[in-house]
Amino acid sequence: MQQNKLENRQMTLASRPHGAPSKENFALKLSSLPEIQDGQVLLRTVYLSLDPYMRGRMSDAESYAEPVALGATMIGGTINRVVSSKHADFSEGDWVLSYVVGWQDYGVSDGRDLVKLDPAQAPVSYALGMLGMPGFTAYMGLKDIGQPKAGETLVVAAATGPVGATVAQMGKLLGCKVVAIAGGEQKCRFALENLGVDACVDHKADDFAEQLAKACPDGIDIYFENVGGKVFDAVLPLLNTSARIPVCGTIAAYNATELPAGPDRLGLLMSTILMKRMTVKGFIIFDDYGHRYPEFAKDMAAWLAEGKMHYKEQIVDGLENAPDALRGLLEGKNFGKLVIRVGQDELL
Amino acid sequence: MQQNKLENRQMTLASRPHGAPSKENFALKLSSLPEIQDGQVLLRTVYLSLDPYMRGRMSDAESYAEPVALGATMIGGTINRVVSSKHADFSEGDWVLSYVVGWQDYGVSDGRDLVKLDPAQAPVSYALGMLGMPGFTAYMGLKDIGQPKAGETLVVAAATGPVGATVAQMGKLLGCKVVAIAGGEQKCRFALENLGVDACVDHKADDFAEQLAKACPDGIDIYFENVGGKVFDAVLPLLNTSARIPVCGTIAAYNATELPAGPDRLGLLMSTILMKRMTVKGFIIFDDYGHRYPEFAKDMAAWLAEGKMHYKEQIVDGLENAPDALRGLLEGKNFGKLVIRVGQDELL
Repeated sequence: MQQNKLENRQMTLASRPHGAPSKENFALKLSSLPEIQDGQVLLRTVYLSLDPYMRGRMSDAESYAEPVALGATMIGGTINRVVSSKHADFSEGDWVLSYVVGWQDYGVSDGRDLVKLDPAQAPVSYALGMLGMPGFTAYMGLKDIGQPKAGETLVVAAATGPVGATVAQMGKLLGCKVVAIAGGEQKCRFALENLGVDACVDHKADDFAEQLAKACPDGIDIYFENVGGKVFDAVLPLLNTSARIPVCGTIAAYNATELPAGPDRLGLLMSTILMKRMTVKGFIIFDDYGHRYPEFAKDMAAWLAEGKMHYKEQIVDGLENAPDALRGLLEGKNFGKLVIRVGQDELL
Repeated sequence: MQQNKLENRQMTLASRPHGAPSKENFALKLSSLPEIQDGQVLLRTVYLSLDPYMRGRMSDAESYAEPVALGATMIGGTINRVVSSKHADFSEGDWVLSYVVGWQDYGVSDGRDLVKLDPAQAPVSYALGMLGMPGFTAYMGLKDIGQPKAGETLVVAAATGPVGATVAQMGKLLGCKVVAIAGGEQKCRFALENLGVDACVDHKADDFAEQLAKACPDGIDIYFENVGGKVFDAVLPLLNTSARIPVCGTIAAYNATELPAGPDRLGLLMSTILMKRMTVKGFIIFDDYGHRYPEFAKDMAAWLAEGKMHYKEQIVDGLENAPDALRGLLEGKNFGKLVIRVGQDELL
């Protein structure tokens, strides 16, 4: 099913998932193209970012952001082209990053939420990854909460994803020993060969915890938490005194329908935080660090221009494939930053 | 059994406790008085501090400090008088605070670990409580990690103990709404009448969690963690976005011989830390903040002199009663800072 100039495809939330999201939780609706008023622009979606936080927005459990309403278009970051403009700052053909369009072909904006992109500087889709929210998350979490010092051991999971890959490479730039965790031999090889990490441990291995311990003979000083689950279980006993744990995600739990069986280790975690004098800090990137975006944008653009940051995307064609792709993302089936190509780059 | 000038009573660790410590874990040994060399002082113990951390030192489980060896004298902070001195800086009769004497009548020091006390400034035993390690713990944990702002809701447990009472009163001085938690009606009345807290909730009440929620209609911005267990369970759902949790103790777990039954809430805690963008930070006062002691000593001395800090001690007579008193402390049976009077104030 192709994007066209006559109708707007909208991927809406049909029902709330119980466990992993499935196709049945989504419904594709067709509508006519929205019309714009003075001061507005009509946007066509070229790329849609898929990110783990979207699972939370599908649920009505209490979270840090409002859930998507049933029947409403799914939210998400998109790379758009301006189709037509009644706004002085935007012209037809401009590339922009938006967070108000979401999972659909066309959207309208008054310009306030838009960030203009220069396709000559970097591929526009990078603004959904290393040059955007995931990269910014990695940057601030590692720099501000992780407080890395040269020679320290930094462990990062989901190391081939956009957050993990940024953390891993920044860690190396800052002189840390970086131990990556990824799912499967192929991802681990990628991390070793392209991200420059010192070691990569496959969390699917039967002896994962032993391998991690072996890869961290001096313990762990910083653990960048974006997955949780059995990865954190293996990390916990290896944490050093004064360890720092920035927490930006706990993907392993996003599809959980009930708490895991006991014993209850909540008190154990608190005792460990005390005895190891650890810092555990959760953050939501734009809420906590929005004011520091320029610092990130400057550093990351320079690193990319200097060839110091390797970035891998997995681009899946077709808005209709977004539900399956999101489900796979939550199971770690993606390899690199997952992006849906909703429409073609060229003007229609 | 009285302290005398001829022999030294030493309360030693006879066996490691399984669960709550009991009398059988201790053995009272008699020895002759130690002799001093040039550059040393002979110290007689007048007050011995009992503190929850001592339970950890009785165990050989991994912790932040070395365990007391079997057969060795139990460690602890003491207030001593100088019996005789071959050290230029100390004279017979001087009052000092020491951490190398421990649970015994007499000890020898080269002066390096000693802090001289002025009995005219404050009762010397205060150096074991609000003017010492517990007060310093409260001060830095609240100030540096808690980052209190006027109008915020601060919750503190064990509110009539030396750490909790300091946190509670500092919180009021800094403009917070302070909700205390204590065990029993008598302690709660004390907190309301003497510490100036806005509310006190009895954790022994059947509807403790409901009462706490009612006392915190605007949620909890700072929870000063020194107990853990069911108090933390009741606090967790009330925590606000950007809440801060300094962790200086988890007394409820110190006597535990196994983890509590499930479900396992470790992942729930991590998810909550993320979604609420919380900071949870453990600290060991002298390891993390030793360099800031002068700042504490200055502020606290001023607050005490100005009558802004109420301080309650429970003094138990006799070294032989220390084991039972420690057991009671871990069960919350003390009321105020627990101190053992080992010997008389006057020179023997």
